[in-house]
Amino acid sequence: MTERLIYLPLGGAGEVGMNAYVYGWGEPGAERLVLVDLGVTFPDMDSTPGVDLIFPDTAWLEENRDRLEAVFVTHAHEDHVGAVGHLYSRLGDVPVYARKFTAIHARRKLEEQGFDAGRIVRVVGPMEGVPVGQMTLSFMPVPHSIPEASGMLIDTPAGRIFHTGDFKLDPDPVVGEGFVEEDWRAAAGDGVHALVCDSTNVWVPHPGRSESLVGPNIRELVAEASGMVVATTFASNVARVQSMIRAGQEAGRSVCLLGRSMQRMVAAAKEAGVVEDFPETVDLEDARDIPRESLMLVVTGSQGERRAASAQLSRGKYLGLTMAEGDTFLFSSKTIPGNERGVLQIVNAFSEQGVDVVSDEETAYHVSGHANGPDIQRVHEIMRPAMVIPMHGEHRMLRKQAEMARAAGIPSAVATNGTMLDLTGEAPKVAEHIEAGRIYKDGEVQIGALDGVVRDRIRMALNGTCVVTLIVDEDGDVLGEPWVELMGLPAEGRSGPLAETMEARLGATVDALSPKQVADDDKLDDALRKAARAVSNDEIGKKPEVIVVVSRLS
Amino acid sequence: MTERLIYLPLGGAGEVGMNAYVYGWGEPGAERLVLVDLGVTFPDMDSTPGVDLIFPDTAWLEENRDRLEAVFVTHAHEDHVGAVGHLYSRLGDVPVYARKFTAIHARRKLEEQGFDAGRIVRVVGPMEGVPVGQMTLSFMPVPHSIPEASGMLIDTPAGRIFHTGDFKLDPDPVVGEGFVEEDWRAAAGDGVHALVCDSTNVWVPHPGRSESLVGPNIRELVAEASGMVVATTFASNVARVQSMIRAGQEAGRSVCLLGRSMQRMVAAAKEAGVVEDFPETVDLEDARDIPRESLMLVVTGSQGERRAASAQLSRGKYLGLTMAEGDTFLFSSKTIPGNERGVLQIVNAFSEQGVDVVSDEETAYHVSGHANGPDIQRVHEIMRPAMVIPMHGEHRMLRKQAEMARAAGIPSAVATNGTMLDLTGEAPKVAEHIEAGRIYKDGEVQIGALDGVVRDRIRMALNGTCVVTLIVDEDGDVLGEPWVELMGLPAEGRSGPLAETMEARLGATVDALSPKQVADDDKLDDALRKAARAVSNDEIGKKPEVIVVVSRLS
Repeated sequence: MTERLIYLPLGGAGEVGMNAYVYGWGEPGAERLVLVDLGVTFPDMDSTPGVDLIFPDTAWLEENRDRLEAVFVTHAHEDHVGAVGHLYSRLGDVPVYARKFTAIHARRKLEEQGFDAGRIVRVVGPMEGVPVGQMTLSFMPVPHSIPEASGMLIDTPAGRIFHTGDFKLDPDPVVGEGFVEEDWRAAAGDGVHALVCDSTNVWVPHPGRSESLVGPNIRELVAEASGMVVATTFASNVARVQSMIRAGQEAGRSVCLLGRSMQRMVAAAKEAGVVEDFPETVDLEDARDIPRESLMLVVTGSQGERRAASAQLSRGKYLGLTMAEGDTFLFSSKTIPGNERGVLQIVNAFSEQGVDVVSDEETAYHVSGHANGPDIQRVHEIMRPAMVIPMHGEHRMLRKQAEMARAAGIPSAVATNGTMLDLTGEAPKVAEHIEAGRIYKDGEVQIGALDGVVRDRIRMALNGTCVVTLIVDEDGDVLGEPWVELMGLPAEGRSGPLAETMEARLGATVDALSPKQVADDDKLDDALRKAARAVSNDEIGKKPEVIVVVSRLS
Repeated sequence: MTERLIYLPLGGAGEVGMNAYVYGWGEPGAERLVLVDLGVTFPDMDSTPGVDLIFPDTAWLEENRDRLEAVFVTHAHEDHVGAVGHLYSRLGDVPVYARKFTAIHARRKLEEQGFDAGRIVRVVGPMEGVPVGQMTLSFMPVPHSIPEASGMLIDTPAGRIFHTGDFKLDPDPVVGEGFVEEDWRAAAGDGVHALVCDSTNVWVPHPGRSESLVGPNIRELVAEASGMVVATTFASNVARVQSMIRAGQEAGRSVCLLGRSMQRMVAAAKEAGVVEDFPETVDLEDARDIPRESLMLVVTGSQGERRAASAQLSRGKYLGLTMAEGDTFLFSSKTIPGNERGVLQIVNAFSEQGVDVVSDEETAYHVSGHANGPDIQRVHEIMRPAMVIPMHGEHRMLRKQAEMARAAGIPSAVATNGTMLDLTGEAPKVAEHIEAGRIYKDGEVQIGALDGVVRDRIRMALNGTCVVTLIVDEDGDVLGEPWVELMGLPAEGRSGPLAETMEARLGATVDALSPKQVADDDKLDDALRKAARAVSNDEIGKKPEVIVVVSRLS
């Protein structure tokens, strides 16, 4: 048999974020391809200052776009659907398949980038097979923390793959279908060929907890609260949002949703029909007139995002609403590593206002949307795979799940972004390594992660910037003195004003140059740059980034 | 009585870090002052890129330096002693008191800044009173996570203050004196006048755990390990380091200490005599020749610091040593919020090398050095204070401890940096608010947090930088075209190369200016800056920082 089954993660394997997994069947190098998910990851000041969003580098897919048949989106979280619009033009004119709720989001992403989304996005029901070449793909509902989350059943000539997507084993997820072991066993049949499985929480040693446990605790908290109650969670967790609204209403409060994504998610859930009898909420205008002890707000910004409602409220009056002593603020969420500072800033700001902040992660008021270690083990047992490929996780998570599989005698491979596996046989084999990188959305343009743009920004942030200008006249003589402008540098050095000291020393540098050196752009630039860094280092102990501009009159 | 007792935090109250607390006795505005601790806090890329260290702003103390009598340093952690050298010249020629181990560090800090530390630093034994005006201060040993940690007993005409310093209630801290309730009761007498108390862990609901519980777990882990074992913790936790070395030796391994601060702390502990029979370690040269299964390294870098030993080892060969498959790496530490990314980078790098990483915070392999909620409550009960002033903590922590005190009927006040309290009477009163800010060590100079230097760096990191140069000739005519240089900006915009597009549009801007506008520096600068930002926004959706340099020939 010369045809083969390949698996190639372009994002999400070796990190949590920007999921993008390629599957293909066919002769080597001529496989027909599908892409499962096309998500984003978020920038941070440490490594990607000024960047707006981060996408997987789809260069390999672009080179092979004639072989790409379709994109399937498992669910509507940004790290799975967020790049569909931004990268669509790179993929060729392929259909994007999704279930109803997810499709609403995929369409919006495409429309925002000017595509005719109605033509591109195709809604598929659960377990409804979509034939793609010799493969057939079906969305299999899995519980997660967003409506209509799905795994992919991928039937291939080599057997069935179960790509879990993000999932947990929750029999009662409040919104949507719960975990039913018999259904999963039925999908597994005599055992799937390959289980490609979420690894996010593999290190968590206890079984995951059900979404249904959270509602009663929130209800109790709200019932006992006296002032205004404000609660935040991920807007996409429609089940949680619903539990919050019900808790408020049972306590006799009117509930108002704040934040654009909160409104949007609830609207999409209603449109897709994933929630029945979704409780009524009040508008902002009405909320302003309701006494605080009769009001509850459900707001965005659980990760401390500066512009979201939580942060805005912590800084004072927001949309006519102000928190006050005796009010309660609930974080019904887990702080994602890296967001701690932003969240703590909010907590402390509320503390200064006398607001009681309740945040107790992963116990009373929050449960994770991902399967924990024992749950993953259970899925290995239920699906009886011939091989396990860990995905969706940092390296330490992938490795942990691979070890778990191997300990049970199941072949496994840790394949990070860019590692193409051949899954045709009885065990995964590395077929090829391709370049897998990142694309940055910077303002309205896309740049490569290795273009040096962000590196320069980091250097300016760490070292400050110094501009040196010099004019050379028609005869090749230096006109006047070098001029120095500083940005992000201390004004005073050891000997006095830094710019003046630098200009004096750079003047001396220029005086010492031969006419030949002055005539040579590179040499002159180099001499000025080196001198500027040296003087600055002497004066303040820092070597700034230097921009040299030599103007030659002619 | 016209004299009064004042308390003024300049750092550490409203944050965890850069501790600096002023106490004074005397007539209002003429109190004789002492400073307890003078520490640093650490910069981060989000808010203080390029900054080396952060100090409390001591401007108020400088203005009142004639009234400052002495500095007392409670223990040798950087957030308590780190700024003593850097800020000493601002304080006048005052003595610095510390116990032996702490004094070694204080002396080094002063010597590094060129002071005659031997003359300045005075070693004081535990409970040995130091008279300062009408106050007497004594170091009272308290268990913490560093040798010779101490609280301050401050006897004043208004009564005794117990300033806890950083502490926990550990009866068996492995190194140094354990908590003995009778001693604390004796110090309290009929109850102290004011308890100024560490708030770091006040939110932790269970009693703190003893340092002595960690050693056996490490011993077990090392005994079962097969390859090389590497363990990291704060170098200053000499008890932990000692437990690690003993664990290695009991498992038949030679132990080598890696990292400058590790060597330095152990040397200081030996010099101060705080450890008896400190176990022998091997030198790096010898370690290289020892088979990996017989070797254990105890290394710096538990917080993921890029240049420390842990990070270096995770990136490959370091000082001739390389981690390999089957080795074990132990984080015997808690990751401080904000350091998660750096630590996870190390964990994942080790995962790629097949190294087993063990990190299980606050249970088997680590205990905190701070008293938890119930411990703080117990201290309130033991010391029977007339008032409780929470210190050393973020606002939410200070507030929590104040609530705890008030619930027990003890007056309390949340006083953040710059809030001067009058503690003379039966309850704390706010006496005054003074400006309390931060000083940045930037390279080798000190700058104010509000100087705008760091703000400019952050803007350059977020927005990129654009330099626009223009030459105006002797007649006031523009010579040639504006020239644009970019740094940290995408090279390509919608219409093509960004710099070229900007130059063309800026040329048009200049052409449209009247001679009067060209002659006016501010107007010309403003026109070029606005145009540059507008073009860039059109082309790439970002408005960069703009540096305009106009050269006028004369």
